[in-house]
Amino acid sequence: MSERLYLFDTTLRDGQQTQGVQFSASEKVQIAEALDALGVDYIEGGWPGANPTDSDFFRTAPKTRAKMTAFGMTKRVGRSAENDDVLAAVLDAGTATVCLVGKTHPFHVTTALGVTLEENREAIAATFRHLKTKGREALFDAEHFFDGYKADPAYALSCLRAALDEGARWIVLCDTNGGSLPSEVGRIVREVIAAGIPGDHLGIHCHDDTGNAVANSLAAVEAGCRQIQGTLNGLGERCGNANLITLIPTLLLKEPYASQFDTGVSRAALQGILKTSRMLDDILNRVPSRAAPYVGASAFAHKAGLHASAILKDPTTYEHIEPSLVGNERQIPMSNQAGQSNLRARLASAGVEVDPKDPRLAHILEVIKAREDQGYAYDGAQASFELLARRELGLCPEFFEVKRYRVTVERRKNKYDQMISLSEAVVVVRIGGQKVMSVSDSMDEAASDRGPVNALYKALVKDLGPWQALIDDMKLVDFKVRITQGGVDAVTRVIIDSEDGQGRRWSTVGVSPNIVDASFEALLDALQWKLIRDAGTTVATL
Amino acid sequence: MSERLYLFDTTLRDGQQTQGVQFSASEKVQIAEALDALGVDYIEGGWPGANPTDSDFFRTAPKTRAKMTAFGMTKRVGRSAENDDVLAAVLDAGTATVCLVGKTHPFHVTTALGVTLEENREAIAATFRHLKTKGREALFDAEHFFDGYKADPAYALSCLRAALDEGARWIVLCDTNGGSLPSEVGRIVREVIAAGIPGDHLGIHCHDDTGNAVANSLAAVEAGCRQIQGTLNGLGERCGNANLITLIPTLLLKEPYASQFDTGVSRAALQGILKTSRMLDDILNRVPSRAAPYVGASAFAHKAGLHASAILKDPTTYEHIEPSLVGNERQIPMSNQAGQSNLRARLASAGVEVDPKDPRLAHILEVIKAREDQGYAYDGAQASFELLARRELGLCPEFFEVKRYRVTVERRKNKYDQMISLSEAVVVVRIGGQKVMSVSDSMDEAASDRGPVNALYKALVKDLGPWQALIDDMKLVDFKVRITQGGVDAVTRVIIDSEDGQGRRWSTVGVSPNIVDASFEALLDALQWKLIRDAGTTVATL
Repeated sequence: MSERLYLFDTTLRDGQQTQGVQFSASEKVQIAEALDALGVDYIEGGWPGANPTDSDFFRTAPKTRAKMTAFGMTKRVGRSAENDDVLAAVLDAGTATVCLVGKTHPFHVTTALGVTLEENREAIAATFRHLKTKGREALFDAEHFFDGYKADPAYALSCLRAALDEGARWIVLCDTNGGSLPSEVGRIVREVIAAGIPGDHLGIHCHDDTGNAVANSLAAVEAGCRQIQGTLNGLGERCGNANLITLIPTLLLKEPYASQFDTGVSRAALQGILKTSRMLDDILNRVPSRAAPYVGASAFAHKAGLHASAILKDPTTYEHIEPSLVGNERQIPMSNQAGQSNLRARLASAGVEVDPKDPRLAHILEVIKAREDQGYAYDGAQASFELLARRELGLCPEFFEVKRYRVTVERRKNKYDQMISLSEAVVVVRIGGQKVMSVSDSMDEAASDRGPVNALYKALVKDLGPWQALIDDMKLVDFKVRITQGGVDAVTRVIIDSEDGQGRRWSTVGVSPNIVDASFEALLDALQWKLIRDAGTTVATL
Repeated sequence: MSERLYLFDTTLRDGQQTQGVQFSASEKVQIAEALDALGVDYIEGGWPGANPTDSDFFRTAPKTRAKMTAFGMTKRVGRSAENDDVLAAVLDAGTATVCLVGKTHPFHVTTALGVTLEENREAIAATFRHLKTKGREALFDAEHFFDGYKADPAYALSCLRAALDEGARWIVLCDTNGGSLPSEVGRIVREVIAAGIPGDHLGIHCHDDTGNAVANSLAAVEAGCRQIQGTLNGLGERCGNANLITLIPTLLLKEPYASQFDTGVSRAALQGILKTSRMLDDILNRVPSRAAPYVGASAFAHKAGLHASAILKDPTTYEHIEPSLVGNERQIPMSNQAGQSNLRARLASAGVEVDPKDPRLAHILEVIKAREDQGYAYDGAQASFELLARRELGLCPEFFEVKRYRVTVERRKNKYDQMISLSEAVVVVRIGGQKVMSVSDSMDEAASDRGPVNALYKALVKDLGPWQALIDDMKLVDFKVRITQGGVDAVTRVIIDSEDGQGRRWSTVGVSPNIVDASFEALLDALQWKLIRDAGTTVATL
């Protein structure tokens, strides 16, 4: 018989404490809807009254199956709960559920608040008594609980009991400073339960300051807690909160959790978790972490030659779960550690079947090795790898030929006597026997110069004749530059990530001492890959 | 009485399995030296014979106090240890210590290797017997041990015993697929020790596929393992290995580890761990993770209003450790006394003395903050930092003014019908009332195009009139490019390192969406700094 384990998301509240993160009200709506689709039980939307955007959000919050929760703090000492304007603003948001933080660590009560221990505990009791009369489901975020318990267990526990006795549904044990370790979290949770706070009323709220936020949450659940608080992608103050994108797959797919617990997240919703993670990165304009557990682009990438050859025999040899369970994919990247079996597998997954005895396999590996020595890197640029192999195998039609290009970067005074820069590019291509000349500048909508590569790309994709319709849905989504040799003989490697209207995403690479030319090579590969996908390899070209 | 806990770094071997990572031999030397300064016990340098760069590295490996270790695999079934060429190549690297991976999971023995269980165990025994005769310290990396133990504990244990009985110093329990969780790692390690493999011969090797690599390593140590394998910044196959940059501060600063164990890392070396982490990011041209435990730029940043005000009363209210212990810094709201005294110290070290009461200090802090928001980074560009402050303080003469420049990059066919690229730059400067126009191309001695930045630099330094003699001994020694925001709105940060005939070395920064213009800004700062040093600040200019 499974027990219910509850998931409480605080991306919109504690997640917003991340340096550089400030969600708009409409972004909060978008994230709340994604959380609801994923299946969390509680969505903490922010602190109404403390932050105008948070107040706006609660006014326009979407209707969710998940319980929308307003955050605030327990009433201050020296006024009644009824007359605390900060608390009133939280209740005014009108949510069925309210989560209030309060102190349980004697040092914080006396140093940060400057009140007596008895006054603090009485303020907690009075706060939750007040919430009961208002008919709200209440959570008590016991701030610094683990540090407080280590300093004075009797006092810390008495604060929890004050909230529980006055009707708080959940007592949330917070490792506010993030310094606690899994074995002590497990031990303290067991002691709290033994002291009479039931595990099915206990939540856990961890931070990642020692890299253990996920493990601390799991240790608390094993010890008896039945609610986990966390955030998408582990956003949060300082090093972040427990990462729900990591915890949810573990809870659903791994024993003992999978058999012991039910959560609100279905196996079908789990397959969308990679997209949920990417959506948040999109909103924040962050490059997704390749190494993220479960959802990272490298999470099922097999680079070591030994691993890659075993994966071909049976994927379970080097994968702890089937990647599709979390919406992810296996990757067998190329590198100079790879063998021919690795190469064939990668080609097969790109739709290019090669006989194991084909002598060109060895030649392709030689070409890859030679180019990697020049600075190319194919394990982060699979589309360029595929094109390299296709060229060697005669499977790469030439859709167009670039006859020449010229890019100009100028810096000079404008008519307002300000120094400005601008770039212009001219590209000449031959397509189907025709010569086509295109020109573009580098200005964006705000009339700011985006540089020579931008101008070159815009000129290149301006008129590709019969292929134009196939590339119109393509856009560049990331641009990475690395100097592969230091010093004056610097060689530049450019990797470009592209995306199209069908949601395909592909990476291409260019290398040259000339950074513009390296970029151009990666741009050409990006176009070529897209055209092969959408026009095929048997079309009449040039 | 403290017990010795050993640290085994595999950044250069398993870390190189990270997608997109390929160290050069000289980068491996630089990393090995940093690991040795940090105080790890073992440095796994790579797999000699499997990869030419790894073979090169062992030939030129630095002399380290840490034991340099070659990686390989146990001998193959069907040949003797003496006649296994793969094993011979590993031993030929000549390291005192050798780490060999072998199988302990029946499924892998039969599926991936296709040999019998008995043959596999005998191959392990024969391998370590051979190593003993060669006088090498030997480690056995027990691949897939935790999965193997769950499938067939007796067989998995018998493989460990085969290695131990033949003299392996360390038996390393590997969670190769990264799917194990802390409580099962702890339980299995205790069972292994109970079955007779002593804990002071046991190592732990974890991967981060469930976000628990650090916690699994700690669980294994609590259960009795006395060696931890990991990597700098958690590099490694798929989601990475256990992150030593996170584990080391926990082991040195947190109980029960701090009292129970000694490692080779001193408290003084711990203060350099942030720099070690940044050095690796520099080599990989990665943007350091702001949220990284201990060493992230946000690890001690206090954004929440409640937290920031409590921090001012007592930093221990919201910090689990003192940031300086790991070479990090607290980040608190600007315009406080601590920020200004820090600024004065940095200026003094650049030879600029400012009165503590000077109101321009607060203004300089604001300018720095605004420019850092745009993507500038002054930590790695001390010369640009000094120039910024000098400009605000009126201590920065204008030696010349750039009126305009124009750079052209062309790609076209040469007379031999080969595609070539070339760049040309025109720069117009005003010096001492004179307008000087200079032009240069980008060709090096071998007539190869070095790109637009090269052409621009050569044109700029071609004729600087009265200052020419002062800059003739200057050269560019390094050029680093980083995209500071992902996606299509990419902004480029360029850092240029320069050197002169007196052996001075200085770094300057430029930021722009236009990579050529960002480079130009850094070039101008480099010249300006050099002229201030050699012409002084009281010369007649322009």
